[in-house]
Amino acid sequence: MIPGPTPVPETVLVELARHPIGHRSKEFSDIFMSCIEDLKWLGKTKDSDAFIYTASGTGAMEAAISNVISPGDKVLSLVIGVFGKRFGQIAQTFGADVEMFTCEMGKVIDPKLLEQRLSLDKNKEIKVVTVTHSETSTGAANDLEKIAKVVKNHGALLLVDAVTSLGCMNVEIDSWGLDIVISGSQKGFMIPPGLSFIYVSKKAWEYYKKSKCPKFYWDFGKHKKSLDDETTPFTPNVSFICALKKAFEMMKKEGLENIVKRHECLKSNLRAGLKGLGLKLLTEDKDASAAITAIYPPDGVSVPDIRAAYKKDWDITVANGQDTLKDKIFRIGHLGFVSDRDIEMALAVTEKVIKKLRIKS
Amino acid sequence: MIPGPTPVPETVLVELARHPIGHRSKEFSDIFMSCIEDLKWLGKTKDSDAFIYTASGTGAMEAAISNVISPGDKVLSLVIGVFGKRFGQIAQTFGADVEMFTCEMGKVIDPKLLEQRLSLDKNKEIKVVTVTHSETSTGAANDLEKIAKVVKNHGALLLVDAVTSLGCMNVEIDSWGLDIVISGSQKGFMIPPGLSFIYVSKKAWEYYKKSKCPKFYWDFGKHKKSLDDETTPFTPNVSFICALKKAFEMMKKEGLENIVKRHECLKSNLRAGLKGLGLKLLTEDKDASAAITAIYPPDGVSVPDIRAAYKKDWDITVANGQDTLKDKIFRIGHLGFVSDRDIEMALAVTEKVIKKLRIKS
Repeated sequence: MIPGPTPVPETVLVELARHPIGHRSKEFSDIFMSCIEDLKWLGKTKDSDAFIYTASGTGAMEAAISNVISPGDKVLSLVIGVFGKRFGQIAQTFGADVEMFTCEMGKVIDPKLLEQRLSLDKNKEIKVVTVTHSETSTGAANDLEKIAKVVKNHGALLLVDAVTSLGCMNVEIDSWGLDIVISGSQKGFMIPPGLSFIYVSKKAWEYYKKSKCPKFYWDFGKHKKSLDDETTPFTPNVSFICALKKAFEMMKKEGLENIVKRHECLKSNLRAGLKGLGLKLLTEDKDASAAITAIYPPDGVSVPDIRAAYKKDWDITVANGQDTLKDKIFRIGHLGFVSDRDIEMALAVTEKVIKKLRIKS
Repeated sequence: MIPGPTPVPETVLVELARHPIGHRSKEFSDIFMSCIEDLKWLGKTKDSDAFIYTASGTGAMEAAISNVISPGDKVLSLVIGVFGKRFGQIAQTFGADVEMFTCEMGKVIDPKLLEQRLSLDKNKEIKVVTVTHSETSTGAANDLEKIAKVVKNHGALLLVDAVTSLGCMNVEIDSWGLDIVISGSQKGFMIPPGLSFIYVSKKAWEYYKKSKCPKFYWDFGKHKKSLDDETTPFTPNVSFICALKKAFEMMKKEGLENIVKRHECLKSNLRAGLKGLGLKLLTEDKDASAAITAIYPPDGVSVPDIRAAYKKDWDITVANGQDTLKDKIFRIGHLGFVSDRDIEMALAVTEKVIKKLRIKS
């Protein structure tokens, strides 16, 4: 019950056990191009290009940064947790002048405060804004639509980390005006970790042309050129792309609206149940991610003890907090191949775990 | 019968169908660390660090470059084909002053000519030399031991692309003094494409400290720090690392010497058989890679027709030439999970294919 790798359906696992086909074959091109089309369907975009990288989500973050910035560019990084900070750190690594715009852990960015900050930037020095949609480390989710509107009014390029939101929460690339969106395979996509995805808008291509950061493996231009030939510039993870096609078939059968509704339900039911058990949650309902929930341990019980009890008694792994939240919260993932039965099970087990530990303590 | 993705054993495929375990679990750490140890065994090194990237071989090439060079550094790239050129191009992308030291396609670098070139570099301006061990595009293999000796005498850092040699041909990192060695999963390692490997010597770490190229996902320092904690800095391809462990179990059972001997035999038998059929090979015996053989089509027969006949009549894919060799040669891979039976089959089928096409032409 960790926020990735998430459960993988049997049809996907069986696909992974097939012998890999040649990556320069027509058969593979057809599968690859169908995944590219399905990525566009998932992100509700017709205008952006979609690329698949053989890499984890952090690789796609580096791609997002290195393809559009130049050393010295001013970047505003909206930080609500570990992964928002990482986005800013990557921009720093590539020579950007990064301002971290942050808030208390568990909270989200207030679009009005962001608007105020951006309104001070009279000379439009801020070239790029980075934002995390659903922050895996806290289980909080920014109001991406509102943030995008504010950034669009200012004119900066908006880079979105949708690693734990795409495939769980509504992400509308075209209508919200998201310039670059990245995601990863081991989350809402229901396949193991190993692939990441990136969407590139027309506006982002304008930045690409001016960017002076070195890149080769991540180079948008190389991926676009190969995509025109219905292939990838470098040997891709053939097995995972075939598995992705299977996962997309399941997703399309369920339907995008139903996927979003299901995750909304899973989140609400889990949160209501946990509160019913007397547990305190890190995020407020209005800020809660549909993908992950962060929970404080009951008084007098430590996070390591809780995690050990889940593991020992139930063979279930729950995640610890990260960074400053380590040993202060534990996290349950409910994204991807998860049903309401799983939430009921999680609540029943959690009840037993905390009862046992409370008796001991 | 292409030079990657290569055949994958059933035990590895079955492992890929297992549900991915959490990448921060003790269970995964144990598997991961056993793979790191086995990588060292395979590369005959005790002194170098070994890292695993979730990326294809080109990603590891970018890692090799971006971790040790700084813009303006002089790099000598030994080019005997497409992949040697790519190594040089990546160095150029990262701002190096690259000199391509090349030869006729199908031939290899003459260590004496290299020695002459390096002896002209009185002021030791050449900081890095890149070399391809086995060149996938031509089926030629450089004499890596001799080249390493020449480079060592000069003092430059030696970066080796061992993508199609490691796990097929003898590679002695410590005793030959190879500074950085990269490889990829879909070759001698017998698993599908999706992982790449890199070895980093003590001397390479000295260069790392001075390098001014931006890197995050590829950053040796981040990988080393995580390795000390028996983990990876970013979510790895858990499924593939578990599969890699199975592949290593098979490799260790066969033994390193036997693996090298087997590939040597496969190569010799294939080359003798092809010559017996009257076919001309691109490389001379002394320069031949143990992993790939490049073959000229018989007079009056085109490469596309040959490839079509293999595919249509026998459901076998053979690779075309790349770049300037496209449609001039075809290539048969014989690396990884390949036995002498496969070579006999390849020869028998090739005989039928060329007979049929000769009758037609």
